Amino acid sequence: MAKTGRFTGPLLAFYENTKEQCFKDLKSTESSEAILTLVLECLKFLQKGCTATDLKSLVADKEYFSFVDKRKPAALSRPINKAFFEGNPGKIAANWKAWEAKEPVSVEELTRLAYTMAMAYFAAVDLFDRNNKKGPATYFECLIGHLFARTFQKNPTKSATIEASKRKVKLTMDFLFDLGENKPKIHLPVKTSTRERVVQAWAHQRILDASYGNNVYKGLLVVFSETKLDLRKREVVEICVPDQWLAYQTLIAKMDRIYYFDTPQRYEQLAKELPDVFQLKHFSAFFTETEAILKGTVP
Amino acid sequence: MAKTGRFTGPLLAFYENTKEQCFKDLKSTESSEAILTLVLECLKFLQKGCTATDLKSLVADKEYFSFVDKRKPAALSRPINKAFFEGNPGKIAANWKAWEAKEPVSVEELTRLAYTMAMAYFAAVDLFDRNNKKGPATYFECLIGHLFARTFQKNPTKSATIEASKRKVKLTMDFLFDLGENKPKIHLPVKTSTRERVVQAWAHQRILDASYGNNVYKGLLVVFSETKLDLRKREVVEICVPDQWLAYQTLIAKMDRIYYFDTPQRYEQLAKELPDVFQLKHFSAFFTETEAILKGTVP
Repeated sequence: MAKTGRFTGPLLAFYENTKEQCFKDLKSTESSEAILTLVLECLKFLQKGCTATDLKSLVADKEYFSFVDKRKPAALSRPINKAFFEGNPGKIAANWKAWEAKEPVSVEELTRLAYTMAMAYFAAVDLFDRNNKKGPATYFECLIGHLFARTFQKNPTKSATIEASKRKVKLTMDFLFDLGENKPKIHLPVKTSTRERVVQAWAHQRILDASYGNNVYKGLLVVFSETKLDLRKREVVEICVPDQWLAYQTLIAKMDRIYYFDTPQRYEQLAKELPDVFQLKHFSAFFTETEAILKGTVP
Repeated sequence: MAKTGRFTGPLLAFYENTKEQCFKDLKSTESSEAILTLVLECLKFLQKGCTATDLKSLVADKEYFSFVDKRKPAALSRPINKAFFEGNPGKIAANWKAWEAKEPVSVEELTRLAYTMAMAYFAAVDLFDRNNKKGPATYFECLIGHLFARTFQKNPTKSATIEASKRKVKLTMDFLFDLGENKPKIHLPVKTSTRERVVQAWAHQRILDASYGNNVYKGLLVVFSETKLDLRKREVVEICVPDQWLAYQTLIAKMDRIYYFDTPQRYEQLAKELPDVFQLKHFSAFFTETEAILKGTVP
């Protein structure tokens, strides 16, 4: 993380601790606690140091707002979907602990929980340190890695050893889960948004398919959102490239699932038109379909 | 291009003119002249406004230097390979015009010409506007696109229309040449260096192979170099990821050729060990093997 802005203060220590715990043992209770502590600190800053300002949403049926730092009112956080943001820290803490303890939490609450656990940090970093791209990417990997590792009770690896031209080569990927015999293996690329670099996720899936056979690794792509904020006009749009996605998904490799925290409408439409090609889901589905993924009975 | 630094001055106009001419008609004499004029202006600045400073090369048998702006001595240009840089503007202009006129120029002269035509602009931008990444990428595309278009006497397109799930979809790529019946088609990705994003080149090749059949589009990847300068120690290294390359080349798609302006030693070694997998060449080979590429007789 760049050593600029107030993130060099107390929040940085919470971020570093989250990274440390998650790098050590993603599925651990320590990771769970570190993530929650960081998020609660971020929420505290957003609610005490900031005001919320409405944005003009050009996305049908979605409303967005930004947090604005009272001391630097020109800076806006990224757009936040009103339907998914839970501003009550007590509820966040209670639901997070309940989910970790496998106590029942409604899908609506889980949806807001997951969205807020990611967004609280994103919004805080946007205001502290606008150009910090690494922090949100790393934190989002920690959060998603933790949710999956906790669910599977197993930590992932970050690299695959494959054979190419009769040599063993090692490739770094986002996350790979080997869940044991007779269970699917999982390839889990994690991105805050896709844009240009997402082709890597499909390319890695192709390498896994070519090395291990089709359907050995299930590809589950997790993306936060594709929103873009025009800072001058304060307008929110979704940037989608359906043609690219269709080419990647049919001609490079097939992802079994694409999960979004804020599903872009054009991709939703594409998946509706081509249900055999795309399984696009809101991330909240992850909480209910884990068993089916593990059994391999998910389409 | 960011509106910072002195590139907002006269050099910007030369850059914009180069872009304009090349976007209009890559193979044209106007593009050739615009590129040369920009390069000569860059060389003038480098030689009048800058001094050269030696770097510590950690790459065996290669020596590098940087240009330093006399008025901002803390800023260094990217590393320049001494063996390939031609500091004499008269020679550059004469050889460029000779090549354009199809007059004989030795391979040694062409090597230095091509390297300097790219590097003069890169080095000048580094000193004017350090964080400008778009300028060098765009300019390098113009230069390489022009060299190929001029050679083939045909302009490329920037997108492919392919079929995916029975739909026609349009994909943007770097350059695609359709040279007519009974001639190979060319897929020409162009990068100043590869690092993370290069997987896109192989993914696009895979899409072309899957859509049109293997070997219909020959993949010619052109890369400038993989050097990295440690600004504090003034040391130059080459960043290579041979494992990644081997996986991409064998498990995603096969590039027929990879051309470098400053060939990294680890890739050279890899290509020597696996000649059936990699055809890695110094870019100067392009000038002599065009006919063979066109006939499809190049291995």
